[in-house]
Amino acid sequence: MDIDIKEYMQRLGHAARKASRVLSRTDTHQKNAALNAIASFIERDADTLLAANARDLAAAESAGLEPALLDRLRLTPAGIAQMAEGVRQIAALPDPVGEMSEFSYRPSGIQVGKMRSPLGVIGIIYEARPNVTADAAALCLKSGNATILRGGSEAFHSNQAIAHCVHEGLRLADLPHNAVQVVDTTDRAAVGELITLTGLVDVIVPRGGKSLIERISRDARVPVIKHLDGNCHVFIDDAANPDKAIAIALNAKTHRYGTCNTMETLLVHESFANYLLPKLADRFEEKGVELRGCDRTRAILAGRVKPATEEDWSTEYLAPILAIKVVHGLDEAIDHINLYGSHHTDAIVTDDYSRARRFLREVDSASVMVNASTRFADGFEYGLGAEIGISTDKIHARGPVGLKGLTNEKWVVLGEGHIRE
Amino acid sequence: MDIDIKEYMQRLGHAARKASRVLSRTDTHQKNAALNAIASFIERDADTLLAANARDLAAAESAGLEPALLDRLRLTPAGIAQMAEGVRQIAALPDPVGEMSEFSYRPSGIQVGKMRSPLGVIGIIYEARPNVTADAAALCLKSGNATILRGGSEAFHSNQAIAHCVHEGLRLADLPHNAVQVVDTTDRAAVGELITLTGLVDVIVPRGGKSLIERISRDARVPVIKHLDGNCHVFIDDAANPDKAIAIALNAKTHRYGTCNTMETLLVHESFANYLLPKLADRFEEKGVELRGCDRTRAILAGRVKPATEEDWSTEYLAPILAIKVVHGLDEAIDHINLYGSHHTDAIVTDDYSRARRFLREVDSASVMVNASTRFADGFEYGLGAEIGISTDKIHARGPVGLKGLTNEKWVVLGEGHIRE
Repeated sequence: MDIDIKEYMQRLGHAARKASRVLSRTDTHQKNAALNAIASFIERDADTLLAANARDLAAAESAGLEPALLDRLRLTPAGIAQMAEGVRQIAALPDPVGEMSEFSYRPSGIQVGKMRSPLGVIGIIYEARPNVTADAAALCLKSGNATILRGGSEAFHSNQAIAHCVHEGLRLADLPHNAVQVVDTTDRAAVGELITLTGLVDVIVPRGGKSLIERISRDARVPVIKHLDGNCHVFIDDAANPDKAIAIALNAKTHRYGTCNTMETLLVHESFANYLLPKLADRFEEKGVELRGCDRTRAILAGRVKPATEEDWSTEYLAPILAIKVVHGLDEAIDHINLYGSHHTDAIVTDDYSRARRFLREVDSASVMVNASTRFADGFEYGLGAEIGISTDKIHARGPVGLKGLTNEKWVVLGEGHIRE
Repeated sequence: MDIDIKEYMQRLGHAARKASRVLSRTDTHQKNAALNAIASFIERDADTLLAANARDLAAAESAGLEPALLDRLRLTPAGIAQMAEGVRQIAALPDPVGEMSEFSYRPSGIQVGKMRSPLGVIGIIYEARPNVTADAAALCLKSGNATILRGGSEAFHSNQAIAHCVHEGLRLADLPHNAVQVVDTTDRAAVGELITLTGLVDVIVPRGGKSLIERISRDARVPVIKHLDGNCHVFIDDAANPDKAIAIALNAKTHRYGTCNTMETLLVHESFANYLLPKLADRFEEKGVELRGCDRTRAILAGRVKPATEEDWSTEYLAPILAIKVVHGLDEAIDHINLYGSHHTDAIVTDDYSRARRFLREVDSASVMVNASTRFADGFEYGLGAEIGISTDKIHARGPVGLKGLTNEKWVVLGEGHIRE
């Protein structure tokens, strides 16, 4: 492209900031009108979207992109219907903007409380999935934020076609065109500019593989809400109900292999290992899960388990592979999780009240669970209605990030001419 | 110093992480015991603290440091008593760790809610004020966080003496020595290492001048909770009560000149300017405040006002200087504040309900006020009990940051063997 990328991105940033001022005062009805219109236009334009997507797919195939990426890139009629339905569901969610809470009178006579407000301008950087365009735009719009979307170059035509529906919806609801902007260059320099637009962009949400997220976190000059990998654990205590333990371990590993809330390492209390591990191994073998164990696991499951290396404890397989470790008890389990885990989601299976309580407090993860499968760590399951992703960061929103995670609270002071003495 | 700074800081980081695990499960009684002991030791060691401080002061004087810095560096018997009292007040505050909220049953049968937990390891980087050592250590300890403190080299001996009291208090309460670590080298490279200890340090809180904070924000690889400057505004609407307007404007500017919540620019509605500006000018002149105005202000206050330049609108004077602008009304006031302000604290004086409501929603600042002086933006005035500073960032804690700002919420899921279907 024959433009100055720096200047172009600055222009996008200024336009987004201006639009965000309008969105910050836009009422709920108007935002919902835009969202419902966008959903209808996505359905109406299904054929156009499929045609644009076909162009992207053809280019990706001839460039020899791997099948998994082609899968993520592909739109189907059912996928498009789902995309529209997702936007409608976001319209149906309560508007978090303007929520006022915790108001109380202070000794000085002022009344102090909080009001929830949009973050301002959110930059979304993603890879091949075109549905993120509709999804992220809808979440940001509903939460009163302007968005700058930068999708992968593989999905360029698909994203532009979806953006067209978004812009038509905005226009119908009389909202600024620049409330949602899609970067219309595939130049990689645009990403570098976007993540350094201090004062124009308030937060970056990268969605994609670990290397993308690491690169963005490293180079960004504006805050990043990160969605890193999930190296999730289930610890089966010796006070666990064995049937529940087996069901949870099996569900946490085999319900879906490629999700970030899938269990990657199973920890088993040493007093329970001789009884439980052979039963678990039977079930995992039925499902075709490869087991990699510590020495004690291997001694119990002679010949059925490969040796686990130090690297296995830190690995997110995203595949039918499970690392297993026998631990002395709760303390070793907690230490192992805090050391090797990714602070995403970890569960204990136990009927012991005190151990459950300690696990919840001491495991330093975004989601901690008792007697439930790690697969529940999800914005829909938690009742957020939708999520922009799952944060493993410790500041701002942690765990599944929904509309509230795209807002923050400001302090409100109401007085009657109060001055400070 | 003859040590490898990188290795030294890594060692501090690992020790802090280990201590943070203990603190995360330490009960409230034990943390309070440590805090009360620290307060007593500070009082007991007042003479030692004064002697250490005298060494720092002598070095600073002979190095020709400016009087304002010497002031910040100086400990007095009264200041030491206040430091101890501050630590006791933090002991008396409710413990935020473990607060559980928003629990509800989901359609799946799991019960989902949130639990407040410490951030982990907090790095504090500050300049000449030795009292920050006690203050920050106490806030972090109460909120269950391990701390690495890096004070200015000018306060080296004072900080070490205070750290001694902190460590004695920790020992008395049987808490790990490394719960609070004071960097014991004045090598500037230590700061660069501290702010890049990814995985060992969870958040950096820089306290000091703007240039320090900008440098740290630029170079940090771990999240930073920032406390930048305050370019605060008061907008006097034409529906304002004139007596209240004058009292608030005067208090916001002249109560203290050097604080971040002091008003730096006054905006006056054009319909009210002819009546109000001469009265305001009288009062500001009595107090010796230099006025710098826009053209319309100067026309009204002929000869009493210097011209304000574009730069004045963005300037935090921290001095008896005030910029004044006559605006067309609410829209121009909001635009001016959002454009030139620092998103710290801004107030409207009005008796008009709708304008007050719009100002609260549309001004994009950490604190927004109606009919109250900006000077109220303060952790104590808001009821936080104490504050580590005031954040102008938009993610995580905004405005005055107290104990809650040093914690975050994790998700808790309670099941009875629930798996995801």
